[in-house]
Amino acid sequence: MSLTDTHALAEPASCYAPCVAARAATGRETFSLRLPLRHSGARTVRIACEWQGPVDGPVLLVAGGISAHRHVAASPAYPEAGWWDAQVGAGKALDTERFRVVAIDWLGSDGSLDVAIDSADQADAFAAVLDHLGIDRADAFIGCSYGAMVGLQFAARHGARLGRLIAISGADRPHPYSSAWRALQRNIVALGRNESASREALSLARQLAMLSYRTPEEFAERFDAPVALIDGVARCASADYLESCGQKYVARTAPTAFLRLSESIDLHAVDAATITVPSVVVAIDEDRLVPLHTLEALAGKLGARCRLERVSSPFGHDAFLTEPARIAAILTGALCGGAA
Amino acid sequence: MSLTDTHALAEPASCYAPCVAARAATGRETFSLRLPLRHSGARTVRIACEWQGPVDGPVLLVAGGISAHRHVAASPAYPEAGWWDAQVGAGKALDTERFRVVAIDWLGSDGSLDVAIDSADQADAFAAVLDHLGIDRADAFIGCSYGAMVGLQFAARHGARLGRLIAISGADRPHPYSSAWRALQRNIVALGRNESASREALSLARQLAMLSYRTPEEFAERFDAPVALIDGVARCASADYLESCGQKYVARTAPTAFLRLSESIDLHAVDAATITVPSVVVAIDEDRLVPLHTLEALAGKLGARCRLERVSSPFGHDAFLTEPARIAAILTGALCGGAA
Repeated sequence: MSLTDTHALAEPASCYAPCVAARAATGRETFSLRLPLRHSGARTVRIACEWQGPVDGPVLLVAGGISAHRHVAASPAYPEAGWWDAQVGAGKALDTERFRVVAIDWLGSDGSLDVAIDSADQADAFAAVLDHLGIDRADAFIGCSYGAMVGLQFAARHGARLGRLIAISGADRPHPYSSAWRALQRNIVALGRNESASREALSLARQLAMLSYRTPEEFAERFDAPVALIDGVARCASADYLESCGQKYVARTAPTAFLRLSESIDLHAVDAATITVPSVVVAIDEDRLVPLHTLEALAGKLGARCRLERVSSPFGHDAFLTEPARIAAILTGALCGGAA
Repeated sequence: MSLTDTHALAEPASCYAPCVAARAATGRETFSLRLPLRHSGARTVRIACEWQGPVDGPVLLVAGGISAHRHVAASPAYPEAGWWDAQVGAGKALDTERFRVVAIDWLGSDGSLDVAIDSADQADAFAAVLDHLGIDRADAFIGCSYGAMVGLQFAARHGARLGRLIAISGADRPHPYSSAWRALQRNIVALGRNESASREALSLARQLAMLSYRTPEEFAERFDAPVALIDGVARCASADYLESCGQKYVARTAPTAFLRLSESIDLHAVDAATITVPSVVVAIDEDRLVPLHTLEALAGKLGARCRLERVSSPFGHDAFLTEPARIAAILTGALCGGAA
């Protein structure tokens, strides 16, 4: 995966002592670690992390969907765009002049780990990064989508090291319908792998995922033109957009990474009652992938103070990326005003 | 296609004179006809039809989804199960002791017609069948899903030959989101065709279609078991069901038939204002493929008396097949109590 800097791979395996680089305000590192994976036994895995913000600032662990990574936002040291520049940076809701933002590349995201990966494993990877950076405790875990599932696991497994949890669009278990949807995406990829059409298959799987991330309302507004007949074959108005989404994804994703991280969403299960960290659960009314009622239920089951925040958006599940102002207001309120 | 009886193919091409067989209470026939197709010019097509019910009874044209066919219901002459036995038969809502039910195999359903097919072409095929059987006028067209689209086209193009229209879960145009969904299904099939994995690809496309026909609510109730890890790979609780749906479909469907009939849904467009046949529009509140608001809009645009009937069902789009009692009540009311 392009974001894994190979020079860091030359670092010795972590000894759980704070690394020198961690004292810098911005940094990246990759280290190796023996980690007991929930479904696959102990494995030596590589963990790639990135941090930015004042060395002694309150720590925020930040995690996005399965296609997100450790480069959350652009910084002077790493100026390329991050996946959540809208929320993370100087003066943003997750203010890197005040907070120290820490993130990881998902276990499995480089395609080299071809075993079942649990959201609990990812939570343990976050804990290992805290150890590695010499951080006892994070002020908050802010997770979106799969990142929210991992945040719930972190809160359940490492609650003593966490001040509060902000879980956006992720529940204590996957919805059966969404699981079926993802299973088909994986089967499409498997079909392409067997038949050496892997790029096209992965692109189709991503396009299908995009449909689950958005809503009919958005498509009706955005792609209202009638289906055209081009060279004797129908082509719908959203085809360019979806194919572009697919191609971009293919360019940066190994099929194995997609298969194992998609699967990881479906393996996710956490007992919300065991979570005693004050929490804010954020639900998008129109989310087709993580229906509102599942997050209402989650908020009711959590074993800690919890506030449910609802956002209505035609962008559905993708609202954490596409509704920056409203998400920022929720984040700011959750971080400044106390958790729940 | 298995339902096309080859002996009937030996019949001479239709001369638009009533055929002899049509005088029997139950019969099947296949005839050839030169038909001007909307997107593809004049073609000689084969039209396969079936009828049952009293020769002089009021005629009901009945049409289902793209996977439906002329064998609507079992009869003594053709005892195998039909696709709408719940509604069609002696004593049923569409009572074959009272009504004469006429249906066709969709143009393109045998996979031999590999050109763009319009819902208007299917409506013209129905009109040709009326000619062929010596029937001036149908009492009603009852169409479900794609059949409702064809019914709308029939009402627009052959309104003088129709008493009333009952359109269940089909609108005047496809929804852009649903079009995108179907486009992906077709791309999956195309992927498999190029790579000689056509059965698996068609099965996946059908499984994806099934998700659009049903609802998250049904899946949550029916497939509540957690995702299992079998031989190191996740398998969700609905996998057996969906794979079975896919396999059954593959066994009876040519990939070309699926591609061209799915496409036909997306090419569908009819000006509802031109329809002057009294109509009943039936909408399922939970239909994700044909959202309620599109049928409310259709009812408002129709150029004739129209009644909108709503049904709430966790089965969504498939309710015309899975909610027999409520659909029967609507059909009975529409046929006996006047159309709209």
